[in-house]
Amino acid sequence: MVGIVEEARLVNIGAKPVEDYVFETILMFQEGSSTVVLKGSGGFVSKAVDVYNALVSRLGDSVELVKVDIGSDRFKGRFKSFIAITVRKKY
Amino acid sequence: MVGIVEEARLVNIGAKPVEDYVFETILMFQEGSSTVVLKGSGGFVSKAVDVYNALVSRLGDSVELVKVDIGSDRFKGRFKSFIAITVRKKY
Repeated sequence: MVGIVEEARLVNIGAKPVEDYVFETILMFQEGSSTVVLKGSGGFVSKAVDVYNALVSRLGDSVELVKVDIGSDRFKGRFKSFIAITVRKKY
Repeated sequence: MVGIVEEARLVNIGAKPVEDYVFETILMFQEGSSTVVLKGSGGFVSKAVDVYNALVSRLGDSVELVKVDIGSDRFKGRFKSFIAITVRKKY
């Protein structure tokens, strides 16, 4: 039996307000995606966690934290820290 | 048989340079602690990941990532995002 693995959608955290990324994520859930990755690099690592916390305070336990990945990407010859927060809509 | 569970030591990330926290962590390892938690709150969440990446680039695979916790703490009536990165010295 061939299972369908749903591709996780990506929200790249940047200079916009936290709420914009919360709505972007909720919209993806409403469009049928169940898994979304919030990715923040460099100075936006903190904001990615802010977006996660705002999402949880808004959606409560209908959203769950799947995993948190941290590391560094090479960017224009320099290394930049990143965080990738995978969240899943339970219901 | 009573096992001894070694208490993880805590490095609170603040305004000092990244390297200061890297040395603080290495010192803890040299003093015999095998598990250290790098905790950053608010704007220092990004720096906690920077410290982790600098530690890995310095110590290579003698240090391993145990887990990453994210959430929010209540601080003076407001919620502040935090990250707690648990690292272990393998050898």
